[in-house]
Amino acid sequence: MYGFNYYTPTKVVFGKNTEAKAAELIREFGGKKVLIHYGGGSVVRSGLLKRVTDTLDEAGIPYVTLGGAVPNPRLSLVYEGIDLCRKEGVDFLLAVGGGSAIDSAKAIGYGVANEGDVWDFYDYRRKATGCLPLGVILTIAATGSEMSDSSVITKEEGLVKRGYNSDYCRPKFAIMNPELTMTLPDYQTACGCTDIMMHTMERYFTSGGNMEITDSMAESLLRTVMTNAEILVRDPKNYEARAEVMWAGSLSHNGLTGCGNDGGDWMTHKLEHELGGLYDVAHGAGLAAIWGSWARYVYKDCLPRFKRFALNVMGVAPAGSDEETALKGIEALEDFFRRIHMPTNLRELGVSATEEDLHTMAHKCAVGVNGAKGSAKLLREADMYAIFKASM
Amino acid sequence: MYGFNYYTPTKVVFGKNTEAKAAELIREFGGKKVLIHYGGGSVVRSGLLKRVTDTLDEAGIPYVTLGGAVPNPRLSLVYEGIDLCRKEGVDFLLAVGGGSAIDSAKAIGYGVANEGDVWDFYDYRRKATGCLPLGVILTIAATGSEMSDSSVITKEEGLVKRGYNSDYCRPKFAIMNPELTMTLPDYQTACGCTDIMMHTMERYFTSGGNMEITDSMAESLLRTVMTNAEILVRDPKNYEARAEVMWAGSLSHNGLTGCGNDGGDWMTHKLEHELGGLYDVAHGAGLAAIWGSWARYVYKDCLPRFKRFALNVMGVAPAGSDEETALKGIEALEDFFRRIHMPTNLRELGVSATEEDLHTMAHKCAVGVNGAKGSAKLLREADMYAIFKASM
Repeated sequence: MYGFNYYTPTKVVFGKNTEAKAAELIREFGGKKVLIHYGGGSVVRSGLLKRVTDTLDEAGIPYVTLGGAVPNPRLSLVYEGIDLCRKEGVDFLLAVGGGSAIDSAKAIGYGVANEGDVWDFYDYRRKATGCLPLGVILTIAATGSEMSDSSVITKEEGLVKRGYNSDYCRPKFAIMNPELTMTLPDYQTACGCTDIMMHTMERYFTSGGNMEITDSMAESLLRTVMTNAEILVRDPKNYEARAEVMWAGSLSHNGLTGCGNDGGDWMTHKLEHELGGLYDVAHGAGLAAIWGSWARYVYKDCLPRFKRFALNVMGVAPAGSDEETALKGIEALEDFFRRIHMPTNLRELGVSATEEDLHTMAHKCAVGVNGAKGSAKLLREADMYAIFKASM
Repeated sequence: MYGFNYYTPTKVVFGKNTEAKAAELIREFGGKKVLIHYGGGSVVRSGLLKRVTDTLDEAGIPYVTLGGAVPNPRLSLVYEGIDLCRKEGVDFLLAVGGGSAIDSAKAIGYGVANEGDVWDFYDYRRKATGCLPLGVILTIAATGSEMSDSSVITKEEGLVKRGYNSDYCRPKFAIMNPELTMTLPDYQTACGCTDIMMHTMERYFTSGGNMEITDSMAESLLRTVMTNAEILVRDPKNYEARAEVMWAGSLSHNGLTGCGNDGGDWMTHKLEHELGGLYDVAHGAGLAAIWGSWARYVYKDCLPRFKRFALNVMGVAPAGSDEETALKGIEALEDFFRRIHMPTNLRELGVSATEEDLHTMAHKCAVGVNGAKGSAKLLREADMYAIFKASM
């Protein structure tokens, strides 16, 4: 067991019609001029953006808007947002959307609150000393960015995808209305459920010390997400299931499911970041496609955790040996991924990578993690290549 | 399932020697002149107070001290603290101790930040509009006050014990070093474990809607506390067990285990507040002494929850009927209480209440909750009397 910091200052306002509280919350947290940042047209088409701007108009809070945040959000739009905020004197950011809009807004917030090139933070060259205050209206349950300290940005030049973490960017508030997620395509819903599970699993699979309360709550969370992800395959408009998944998404990445461990493994995420940078695949699908290969590569080095996962999360019956039990657990999760129509390898993901691509991704990933990373098993470039290769 | 707000801004710094970070954290949250508020002499005798004041001296942060907070903390000391803060220009409170010191500090914080009599808030006459910022060094795992929005104060005149809740009093930081709890008497440790469990159980036993993720995490928390409470009976210096219980104490009362329910039942707490006001018993022991009688009085009105509790928390085998299963669960928890040397009735608590006492407590409790309260079953004065009577 390790010591830890736990800091989740985000005020969560959860339930039906909670988006009506946007102006009240912006005011509570001192916002006087707002940039509303969003992604594609769905926020416009659904009328959500109009409802939000109406609320701000009514409250007399001035704002400017900036759309266009895409999955694997781009650095160029971040620069555009920073310029806009400076020009307009914006002092509060409101992200309306999923992880793309939120992460893009976080990067804009860093850029406005710090001198110099914002990419420096994502490129591990220096640390931010602040971030513009940020609120969120969440429309996709997936990245957990609405409560997390992290954001992930892709630089177009070289398609480099990097994350930067600091408490400064934790949102002041997060409005979560499960109804807003009901219009998501089924594929995106399943991607979100995968991402949510993986945020807890990255923390769960460690060779370091753990806390029982953290582990048992993590297992509860994973079981809940699986149950409700399958309900949503059959019944996408199920409010209760949408709500379970949405709240799990926040709890899975706000730090709760990692308290007392060694920081987690995170290699599935790091490997997927290279996939996402090169092929622009959906993040959750990329995680599902790579996880099984990662798990089979590392499970013998982290056997107690993989055994426990098999028994407590996947509910498999104990097999003849711990290794067999662990493998049954890995297979059971892949079966689950198939049931929610997620890929379990690169082919199913729609990616046909060349040998050169595999080497390029492994090399970039190793550089990105300073040579080696992972807690379940320490991985170097050759290991990363082997996992990419096995996931073909 | 209900909508909810979730707001836990407290920065938790958890692990060995974390008390060394007190000055740094006070500075981070803007404190310039501190009142260090503590309880009995153990904080002095153990050398903890000296270590903390040394840290502040070294950092050049001026402070005054006020000891004397007692279990069921008294209003007179709160008034004294308010006067001292005003006289000394204190702008930050540091509570060193358990729930008594923290709750007393919260009340002092309300008193300094608001005009008029601070008791008005506890007497439901008006609402606070602020609270002095507060940090905590926790030495007893029990009340969860280190992350909660609540405080409970006893007015000497008439021995009236009342709680007041608002987000203003949530501590800015909570330093939690499980080693600081190792010198607690075994009885106090068991009382703390009971209080921790009860904070989740009060939220768990409802007749309103619930969320599966909340329920399953609540069950994980309860099982973890029970396992580790029994370890601490045999091995009070076990760091890991102390840590599991300490973190459970915060999670059990910061709102997490109530997300999506109807607010919870809270009648065991309300009934115990009357016991605590009249007899000055340890809060956790009072809860254990009253819970079984409450549970047997209400379980038929909340049968699905009591059945689920029996199966998922107490691990009993399903009986012939749901009612039998529920009763087996109640019995199993009482057996657990006995194993950690907690009372399961007033006699074992050392209280011999007269008929008049029972009526007085029931009447005061009914007044305190505006006539009727409870979610598992709505209770009125006659019900409260019956539960007190059954707990003799």
